[in-house]
Amino acid sequence: MLLTSSAAGVYVICPTPFTIDGRVDPASTDQMVEAFLKAGATGLTILGIMGEAPKLAADESLAFAKQVIATVAGRVPVIVGVSAAGFAGMSALSRKVMGAGAAGVMIAPPSALRTDDQIVSYYADAVEAIGPDVPFVIQDYPLVTNVVMTPKVILRIIEENPSCVMLKHEDWPGLDKITTLRRASADGQARRVSILTGNGGLFLPFEMERGADGAMTGYAYPEMLVGVVNLIKAGKRKEAHDLFDRHLPLVRYETQPNLGLAVRKYVLKRRGIIASDTLRKPGPKLSPETVADIDWLMERIERS
Amino acid sequence: MLLTSSAAGVYVICPTPFTIDGRVDPASTDQMVEAFLKAGATGLTILGIMGEAPKLAADESLAFAKQVIATVAGRVPVIVGVSAAGFAGMSALSRKVMGAGAAGVMIAPPSALRTDDQIVSYYADAVEAIGPDVPFVIQDYPLVTNVVMTPKVILRIIEENPSCVMLKHEDWPGLDKITTLRRASADGQARRVSILTGNGGLFLPFEMERGADGAMTGYAYPEMLVGVVNLIKAGKRKEAHDLFDRHLPLVRYETQPNLGLAVRKYVLKRRGIIASDTLRKPGPKLSPETVADIDWLMERIERS
Amino acid sequence: MLLTSSAAGVYVICPTPFTIDGRVDPASTDQMVEAFLKAGATGLTILGIMGEAPKLAADESLAFAKQVIATVAGRVPVIVGVSAAGFAGMSALSRKVMGAGAAGVMIAPPSALRTDDQIVSYYADAVEAIGPDVPFVIQDYPLVTNVVMTPKVILRIIEENPSCVMLKHEDWPGLDKITTLRRASADGQARRVSILTGNGGLFLPFEMERGADGAMTGYAYPEMLVGVVNLIKAGKRKEAHDLFDRHLPLVRYETQPNLGLAVRKYVLKRRGIIASDTLRKPGPKLSPETVADIDWLMERIERS
Amino acid sequence: MLLTSSAAGVYVICPTPFTIDGRVDPASTDQMVEAFLKAGATGLTILGIMGEAPKLAADESLAFAKQVIATVAGRVPVIVGVSAAGFAGMSALSRKVMGAGAAGVMIAPPSALRTDDQIVSYYADAVEAIGPDVPFVIQDYPLVTNVVMTPKVILRIIEENPSCVMLKHEDWPGLDKITTLRRASADGQARRVSILTGNGGLFLPFEMERGADGAMTGYAYPEMLVGVVNLIKAGKRKEAHDLFDRHLPLVRYETQPNLGLAVRKYVLKRRGIIASDTLRKPGPKLSPETVADIDWLMERIERS
Repeated sequence: MLLTSSAAGVYVICPTPFTIDGRVDPASTDQMVEAFLKAGATGLTILGIMGEAPKLAADESLAFAKQVIATVAGRVPVIVGVSAAGFAGMSALSRKVMGAGAAGVMIAPPSALRTDDQIVSYYADAVEAIGPDVPFVIQDYPLVTNVVMTPKVILRIIEENPSCVMLKHEDWPGLDKITTLRRASADGQARRVSILTGNGGLFLPFEMERGADGAMTGYAYPEMLVGVVNLIKAGKRKEAHDLFDRHLPLVRYETQPNLGLAVRKYVLKRRGIIASDTLRKPGPKLSPETVADIDWLMERIERS
Repeated sequence: MLLTSSAAGVYVICPTPFTIDGRVDPASTDQMVEAFLKAGATGLTILGIMGEAPKLAADESLAFAKQVIATVAGRVPVIVGVSAAGFAGMSALSRKVMGAGAAGVMIAPPSALRTDDQIVSYYADAVEAIGPDVPFVIQDYPLVTNVVMTPKVILRIIEENPSCVMLKHEDWPGLDKITTLRRASADGQARRVSILTGNGGLFLPFEMERGADGAMTGYAYPEMLVGVVNLIKAGKRKEAHDLFDRHLPLVRYETQPNLGLAVRKYVLKRRGIIASDTLRKPGPKLSPETVADIDWLMERIERS
Repeated sequence: MLLTSSAAGVYVICPTPFTIDGRVDPASTDQMVEAFLKAGATGLTILGIMGEAPKLAADESLAFAKQVIATVAGRVPVIVGVSAAGFAGMSALSRKVMGAGAAGVMIAPPSALRTDDQIVSYYADAVEAIGPDVPFVIQDYPLVTNVVMTPKVILRIIEENPSCVMLKHEDWPGLDKITTLRRASADGQARRVSILTGNGGLFLPFEMERGADGAMTGYAYPEMLVGVVNLIKAGKRKEAHDLFDRHLPLVRYETQPNLGLAVRKYVLKRRGIIASDTLRKPGPKLSPETVADIDWLMERIERS
Repeated sequence: MLLTSSAAGVYVICPTPFTIDGRVDPASTDQMVEAFLKAGATGLTILGIMGEAPKLAADESLAFAKQVIATVAGRVPVIVGVSAAGFAGMSALSRKVMGAGAAGVMIAPPSALRTDDQIVSYYADAVEAIGPDVPFVIQDYPLVTNVVMTPKVILRIIEENPSCVMLKHEDWPGLDKITTLRRASADGQARRVSILTGNGGLFLPFEMERGADGAMTGYAYPEMLVGVVNLIKAGKRKEAHDLFDRHLPLVRYETQPNLGLAVRKYVLKRRGIIASDTLRKPGPKLSPETVADIDWLMERIERS
């Protein structure tokens, strides 16, 4: 099952669960996969920035990917982040996870890229590295990568690389970018690819209204993301915003850079989805005051 | 009336109103000042990043500052942003606005600063430039300045410069930073200064709970900021969060980098507070889709 | 006398001389102008990055520019750096110095620019600010500005703005960029503008061989720059490199970021060209060890 | 043979030789090792930034390291760069190369680090990852890493980590930093570690005079680096500078960012030290004009 341009719904960005002493936790991994599928995920994405991918050794990454793919067992597509400092590492990981049954890979640009041509060339080289038959996702996340891609650049990458099937959109601000990209494909100027949005879902209802096909992001209550996507698709705008706004205080708290992942893991632990909220170093620790904030936010969400 | 370490409440960050053809708009300036005071502002801050200060010529900045100070006429303190590429410009503007009746000045660090000592030295030089008797505010806004100040560095600046009376806190994440700074002054390790928080108010109720004295930020409904600060001070936690959460969807929309100011000016215009939502170049223009989003958000706030 | 696309030779980047107590030094200014003209300068450039322009107040900048222009008295063109945080400041300074007799202005892009279109738009807005009849120079200096312009972007700026007459080239590496730009104008794909090179002259003989028309840079022995440019133009390659290589140890020492200007001012002082090597804050101070290094380098140059 | 604080001389930074089709080239690797030892290297450093380390897959890195260590066969110490995006990768590589006989490892800080405490903590975590008994080298190279370490920070790292035995110094400007660090150890404020300097050798004679113990850098004629170090140690200042200055035109050409490694590999190929000057993507290609420049520079060096 390979990823295609018609992918939609909610691809949940999975954290990598660790035990208290920092080893990858296989039991929590399985439990998390089942919880996310039960929440309505139409896909899973692993080894992304919020999956602490750079903190894993090469063999750990591969073992984790294989386990997730095996547990999912074809129920939904699994996308694997293969961003790497060099193409040799990207190529090796990509080949192995595709061999293990991944649906596609996701590639974020390295932070040194500046000009339009540098970005376009980088994706051409990346496609050469992973092979032209591997479906891939562009990750457009300037807050973290420091690489700014105009719609024009994204369209060039789509045009020049038939294996590009999706944009993980998390530019900020980014709503007009969705509008521009969708207009370009509606006008026949460009091939239409799937657009799933990120940024912890912070703008999800608006993004859907601009033409996104769904979300590819993490949030400790992924059923909310699923609910919002479905409500918007059903034309229930007010209900979608009502549902979303009820969660927004926690979404906002979870989108704090660096700290956000610790928040998310804490909530997932409290919800019984993973066993420990351990992050590998370097990573923040939650202060007692922060824990109290999160407890307050969870209580307000769950009460309503 | 000079700014002191006991400043509290809501210091509204004022945009600079322009006419449709881009000149500073004196009529809107007066109207805006009165609206913000009526909303409960305990102070005003002008010529900050969100005041488009770098887009004004030197004489325009001074004229605008003088007008605001004259209109306020001593009802509340006025703080003037004097961040500049060099100390000669900072010194000149500071001297002139203090002469015109400003309560103090605000200084953001230039983006080239990296090490702890560079940051501390910079503020020492800045104090030399503005004079040791001018109360000043440290602006700690890494998302925009790219300068990261640890609590330790902030405490060193406070310790070495008696004229430092306030921290405009907008680190992100920043809640634990407030806790750390407040603990340091509670423990007698450091002089207590006022902490007013920024970031468009995105974390305001939590920031108050961590020990902030109020907010120094902009938002198109500043009465909400005032309400939240007062409710928290009155111990009404739930009511504070309820009020805040009702506005959070728009707060979130307004905190989009670059675009946010255009959103804010549009709402201020629709509320009759300024005549035009013009931004000077370089600045974004609102798309029709974005205008529709904002209208939707305003309607939901005002209906509730 | 307005700057044109046929400008050539050596436009010496002038430092701004200060007295020991940090005021602009008019006597040294005149003396420096005469020394640079005597050294063979075919133009002067003031208020650039190495002129400590951001450290001057608006009135100081203008007074300094007027004095230099008056002293030069039409003997050579004077270019004035008008890079500014905003277009209002750029417009005001540009109008005043052109009125005072400047030949053109120089504009470096602000460091926030990332994409090709952002850079091209910025120069369009800048031309709107200074007026379409004011000849201007693009400063392409990524090491300092953090803005990377491809040859394609530079050619678009040249094409869209007839008042663009010169590129101050200081990309690094940058030799192939000159080759590409010159090929584009030779092939009739683009209007030919003057290319003067910067970077403290570090690659001057090779830059001339690639098609530069000369240099626009500073070095404490500007007669060397003049000599190299003339020797290359006269076809005396070996002599040009021999002359250059004799100075290279000091050129290399002067191109150290930040420190370099202090080195240059020290040598200019020792050569009797300016009275003091004072830099305004923030700026480095030369250690005794560094002074000894420079003395050693000067001795080796002057002995040979 | 473990690396100690008394290491001195020239540790040549080795490129990773590739065949024309981009595979690691074992024959060239052996030949290069022998050539560098014959040139007088007192150590070798592999898998650094100029060794294209991030472009190698994990197994390639390890195989290359093992081969170099085996070829050297204990004649000199071999240092291996283990900088990695995460500690798991760093730990794995470090353990394996130390097991294979490396003398120590080198660690550059990741570019996200800003504050003094972040940098110090990072090295504490890194030591935890590699183990407290593995001698390590701090790489201080802000031009590439964007991390600025004050002397104070370096001294804290040395103080808190007994396994820190060397600083690879390539700050720029950096001469006064050597003076400050050496004064601190002379004054008994800090443990004395080895300081070897980098930056392609651009300031080598001055660095030696400030107290460096030698160089750890690459240059296509490493015998020049050895010669300069030995002449300075022998008190022959003039001869050292004469030798250095003869090579400076090429050193300068080789220190161009990104392009420099392609230049170095070309010269090594022409000198018969490696079979191909291939770089892995992303990497620059030499234009015919650049090749002609290098040929000219080589001719001038070899003639003299």
